[in-house]
Amino acid sequence: MPEIPATMRQLRSLVTSDNEVRLSVATVDTPQPGEREVLIRVEAAPVNPSDLGLLLAMADVSRAVAGGSDGEPTVTAPIPEPVMRSLTARIGQEMTVGNEGAGVVVAAGASAEAQALLGRTVGFAGGATYGEYCLASPRMCLPLPEGADAVDGASSFVNPLTALGMVETMRNEGHSALVHTAAASNLGRMLNRICLADDVPLVNIVRRPEQARLLRDQGAVHVCDSSEPTFEADLVAALRETGATLAFDAIGGGTIAGQILNAMEAAIVTPDAPYSRYGSDVHKQVYVYGALDRRPIELHRRFGFAWGVGGWLLTPFLARTGGEDLARLRQRVAGELTTTFASHYTDQISLTEALDLETLQRYARMATGEKFLVRP
Amino acid sequence: MPEIPATMRQLRSLVTSDNEVRLSVATVDTPQPGEREVLIRVEAAPVNPSDLGLLLAMADVSRAVAGGSDGEPTVTAPIPEPVMRSLTARIGQEMTVGNEGAGVVVAAGASAEAQALLGRTVGFAGGATYGEYCLASPRMCLPLPEGADAVDGASSFVNPLTALGMVETMRNEGHSALVHTAAASNLGRMLNRICLADDVPLVNIVRRPEQARLLRDQGAVHVCDSSEPTFEADLVAALRETGATLAFDAIGGGTIAGQILNAMEAAIVTPDAPYSRYGSDVHKQVYVYGALDRRPIELHRRFGFAWGVGGWLLTPFLARTGGEDLARLRQRVAGELTTTFASHYTDQISLTEALDLETLQRYARMATGEKFLVRP
Repeated sequence: MPEIPATMRQLRSLVTSDNEVRLSVATVDTPQPGEREVLIRVEAAPVNPSDLGLLLAMADVSRAVAGGSDGEPTVTAPIPEPVMRSLTARIGQEMTVGNEGAGVVVAAGASAEAQALLGRTVGFAGGATYGEYCLASPRMCLPLPEGADAVDGASSFVNPLTALGMVETMRNEGHSALVHTAAASNLGRMLNRICLADDVPLVNIVRRPEQARLLRDQGAVHVCDSSEPTFEADLVAALRETGATLAFDAIGGGTIAGQILNAMEAAIVTPDAPYSRYGSDVHKQVYVYGALDRRPIELHRRFGFAWGVGGWLLTPFLARTGGEDLARLRQRVAGELTTTFASHYTDQISLTEALDLETLQRYARMATGEKFLVRP
Repeated sequence: MPEIPATMRQLRSLVTSDNEVRLSVATVDTPQPGEREVLIRVEAAPVNPSDLGLLLAMADVSRAVAGGSDGEPTVTAPIPEPVMRSLTARIGQEMTVGNEGAGVVVAAGASAEAQALLGRTVGFAGGATYGEYCLASPRMCLPLPEGADAVDGASSFVNPLTALGMVETMRNEGHSALVHTAAASNLGRMLNRICLADDVPLVNIVRRPEQARLLRDQGAVHVCDSSEPTFEADLVAALRETGATLAFDAIGGGTIAGQILNAMEAAIVTPDAPYSRYGSDVHKQVYVYGALDRRPIELHRRFGFAWGVGGWLLTPFLARTGGEDLARLRQRVAGELTTTFASHYTDQISLTEALDLETLQRYARMATGEKFLVRP
């Protein structure tokens, strides 16, 4: 095994009291694994929407400016005043970035779980995967199956377990079908494959005709395009057919969560039903797990009183999930890593390239079909 | 017992396809109780906010017009176009009105529970209490204690069980303190008395200084006035002191639900806490049980991902509550009917007077401190 260098390069994000975010590639000491930790040489780490929030701090990247030197580049971008209110706790703290990745375990603590991973290529979840090396807990490592490499395993945590978590949540909370927004995303296509395999009716909501086509080409049965004038009627029809009363929403801002609740209510209350002043007694739920749209959530209430909107995140879901169930989910991810849970990357970039202005403005867009992979 | 007349007078509300609501006092057959029903001669029925939604159909009462004859008055008022969308299921159906009331059981079905109530003065929940007679299920009747009359018992269901239901929900869902909006309402003052008696910390949110004074005069410890420039800071301070992570909101429209969630999060995350990209992991919940403000609910998200907003209604709460718990709650209402659960009425009106334009415009305002009692 090659020697581990004493220092390494790592991407950092800093919010300053001047209302700016400052990105840099820092040279820092390579960390040493504790007893129950492993050190991974990171080979690939995806840029997920959940990483961008921390990395870019909702700054206006169209006004980003390059700085630093060739070897130590920096980028600064202004953060709008209203956004700063929610970032005061970050000011002055250099944050590491990157929620997941894959690489080779090059050092391990003394514990048996850690030692068992030494030399293995693993997918893993951490908080600093945009760096040459990264510590992880063995619990958060998935040894990759025969024939899978680090690129295959880079996205083996966040999207696969989020998609499986949605289906688990649906079953645990007594629903029998799902609605998903931003459904043409990498995560959305993964959820579509799971639902097709598991016979779970899924209503896919997208925002553009080409996204609808992409999903239909992948076998999606119910696709509703919010840019179509018939969107609300299409959604009611799909909800009536599937009986979906649970939605996962990546958008989070604007009217979509309320539109889904209203469409669910319209699907439940048929036109010839007797009038009930409080609406149907069927519980309708939207879980918001993203914030693609930063505007406030706006709920126009025509959905009675049996409803809920709430936050949903992977980490608390995993914390609530028992060991046996979690093992079952991870087993499935490992077994179907290059099929159901395959991710496709359009661009591979180095840590330094991540600070190139044009590249940064491209991955900041989170465009459908585009996905970046950091190769530290 | 006096003879029961074959016909009786009853208030009706009709939504027409001309976008109007039409109120009338109809003469209808007096109903006969089924085996498990009782017939009550209604002596008093309160006008609750929950009655007004059905009665007035959100019409513009400032443009109401009187009609009919002296003995059979009618009122019509235009319904704004956007409101009509949620009322299509009502068009052409004459609706009875009045959720609760009190009176004497004058006839009873053959069942033992029904017979046991014959001749008793009871508080009761129904759907047609704005009439001279009304059917009810014995399960929804509360025999009034010695010394209490129909006026005392008229509001013995909706507000008392709603207020108790909030405290029960708080305990069942693992919270230890409460927030309440529109807290100077009849219901709010009742909740304040319950929380003082039970040592439940309560944060009262009101919209005017005189409402704050009224609650403080009744012993309320935490009162936050949303008309004050210091409102948000006051709310955070009260939430930090009480630890409240559950709110019941009667307003429902505008920014208040989101403001409460943001203040809860600010109270939990102290300024010196390390930055967490997903916010605190303490679940923060707002239940919306009213619609005093008809605008959309607008959530400005600075409260992380551990949150929920949802509908809450008395009827499903009662359906979820076991028989023993329900008996305990009803017992408490009966025992404290003229103290904790006392309602005060500023005006008593007949069925005909309910259709007097000036009177109607007054009770439609739902002004703090004003409460109307219908005496059919």
